[in-house]
Amino acid sequence: MLVGNKEYKTVWMEGTSVFMIQQNLLPFEFKVHECKTYWDTCIAITDMVVRGAGAIGAAAGFAMAQAFLTIGTKERLKMIREARSDIENTRPTARNLFYAVDRVYRAGLESTEKAVAEAESVAREDEENSKAIGEYGAALTNEKANILTHCNAGWLAFVDYGTALAPVYLAREQGKEVFVYVDETRPRAQGGRLTAWELKNAGVPHVIIPDNAAASLMAQGKIDMVITGADRIAANGDTANKIGTLGRAILAKAFGIPFYIAAPTSTFDMNCATGREIPIEERSQDEVLYQTGTDANGHLIKVLVCSPGSPAYNPAFDVTPARYITGIITEKGMVTADRLSIKKLMKKD
Amino acid sequence: MLVGNKEYKTVWMEGTSVFMIQQNLLPFEFKVHECKTYWDTCIAITDMVVRGAGAIGAAAGFAMAQAFLTIGTKERLKMIREARSDIENTRPTARNLFYAVDRVYRAGLESTEKAVAEAESVAREDEENSKAIGEYGAALTNEKANILTHCNAGWLAFVDYGTALAPVYLAREQGKEVFVYVDETRPRAQGGRLTAWELKNAGVPHVIIPDNAAASLMAQGKIDMVITGADRIAANGDTANKIGTLGRAILAKAFGIPFYIAAPTSTFDMNCATGREIPIEERSQDEVLYQTGTDANGHLIKVLVCSPGSPAYNPAFDVTPARYITGIITEKGMVTADRLSIKKLMKKD
Repeated sequence: MLVGNKEYKTVWMEGTSVFMIQQNLLPFEFKVHECKTYWDTCIAITDMVVRGAGAIGAAAGFAMAQAFLTIGTKERLKMIREARSDIENTRPTARNLFYAVDRVYRAGLESTEKAVAEAESVAREDEENSKAIGEYGAALTNEKANILTHCNAGWLAFVDYGTALAPVYLAREQGKEVFVYVDETRPRAQGGRLTAWELKNAGVPHVIIPDNAAASLMAQGKIDMVITGADRIAANGDTANKIGTLGRAILAKAFGIPFYIAAPTSTFDMNCATGREIPIEERSQDEVLYQTGTDANGHLIKVLVCSPGSPAYNPAFDVTPARYITGIITEKGMVTADRLSIKKLMKKD
Repeated sequence: MLVGNKEYKTVWMEGTSVFMIQQNLLPFEFKVHECKTYWDTCIAITDMVVRGAGAIGAAAGFAMAQAFLTIGTKERLKMIREARSDIENTRPTARNLFYAVDRVYRAGLESTEKAVAEAESVAREDEENSKAIGEYGAALTNEKANILTHCNAGWLAFVDYGTALAPVYLAREQGKEVFVYVDETRPRAQGGRLTAWELKNAGVPHVIIPDNAAASLMAQGKIDMVITGADRIAANGDTANKIGTLGRAILAKAFGIPFYIAAPTSTFDMNCATGREIPIEERSQDEVLYQTGTDANGHLIKVLVCSPGSPAYNPAFDVTPARYITGIITEKGMVTADRLSIKKLMKKD
């Protein structure tokens, strides 16, 4: 995507370094972060310098390639296996991470060059898949569509285009009138910060809403469809995504509004029979109790926004049962959220 | 309620001044604010120095009494009528405001002393009603209960005890084990700030949750009941309350969890046939885009938490249709949310 006049991907590799847009500074500052070792990349994933299912996957694939590139000969395979485990331990929920690491690791067992090439393929496919998702998703939107989205599953969450926002970008290219209601998505406000930043950057009309306002907008008939991304999809269609997604899906059903998940097939975990088996990451209570923002002088600072001394609970994801999902938009087309359709889809070329 | 060692009400009158706990500084600072004229009190209501259905009602009643006390003889009745309209224009949704102003105005037409006495009665009844609501509500809780509440309908929102939290306080007095899940309640975070402050102050075990986590907790079976307050209840039981209440009610229904509204009968507006007729206040987008909190030195500052230049939408309330409400807990007992039951209740002494 263009930022200013320059074309950017969210994450990329040059030599032995991984570069990424420093998303924990957005929307207040636009900076590129360099990770010189696989361990730097691990820290960047854990600290959410890079975040979003596809971007985490690509970064993890690059990190695995970095391990092959930089780990010396002494006990090489043992140390590479340790590196793999370090990378896999950064974030437990996103399926794409395990998918990418596995592909790059296997390729690396043949040669380091193959590991690098495979990591590049993972990133390139992520981008191509996102574009295809955008095309299938855009076909579902009316000429004039009001879309609600949760969290950020735009191009920042992938290598480019994104998933939930790809249909918005593609529909706009097709001349459709699209308006986006952006859930703030507390506690980390990826909607209010990243999605809003992306949409403003791309000139897409939008408005940020408090997460609490979604039901009221639906009741007023202001939402035509809901599209969100996914961090992991079980074999039966149950979907783990950013905390709050389950709530939006239940509300959409109550108001008869279609609720779509947009995700590449790499997000499906056929080893998870149902959503119950998806591990859910619990993050620090400080993400709820404190918030960062810019003061009147534009300095980024952290303030306590809750009552001092009260504890907070901060699960990062929730699981939406398949029955609430109208369809899953993948790079191979739309699929209904049931075991048989998903099995067929995964076998499709 | 006790704050430190001193017993406080949320709002009270001494001489011609109205005093109130300065809620827009809580939980970071505890201060009492003095309003010397009815106009000061109007500003305090508009700026949310005092907030919460019952506390707004009591403050508005006192403001009306202040008008009778302080407005001179020249064109007195005309100016008092203007004062009434000023007070009524502070906040459009809370029913208690109009109820209190009307009572004090009528009494004031007889004598200024009667106006003051009536304003005192409104405040005293608010407190008595809250306590009765607490007793009826506590009877609905199990020996061990996990309660979800939204926004703040504790003693700070009334003159004392509160509505949604009154059952919590009373159940605790009865020796029951009550745990409260506190919705942060963005954008103004009255849950994370005021409810958490109240509960900590009263020693009630609780945890603050991002608004987005409510569905996940319900899905995990961690919530036994939901109790919220109300700003206005229509004759058919449709209820206006803090934005996000509708969402919680729909989720509760989806998970088979009882959803209660706790409110005194002064919150019912028999002139509103349904919720559609309840006016909904829309507030400044800055409440979404900016947030106040304390920095590392304990100074209260305002920071921009969303992407610069994106607009936000900020409706303060939503309307929950009666069909999602298990029951309305009033000072006269519990009532089901339907026209006939409410009509009977309102006629009851």
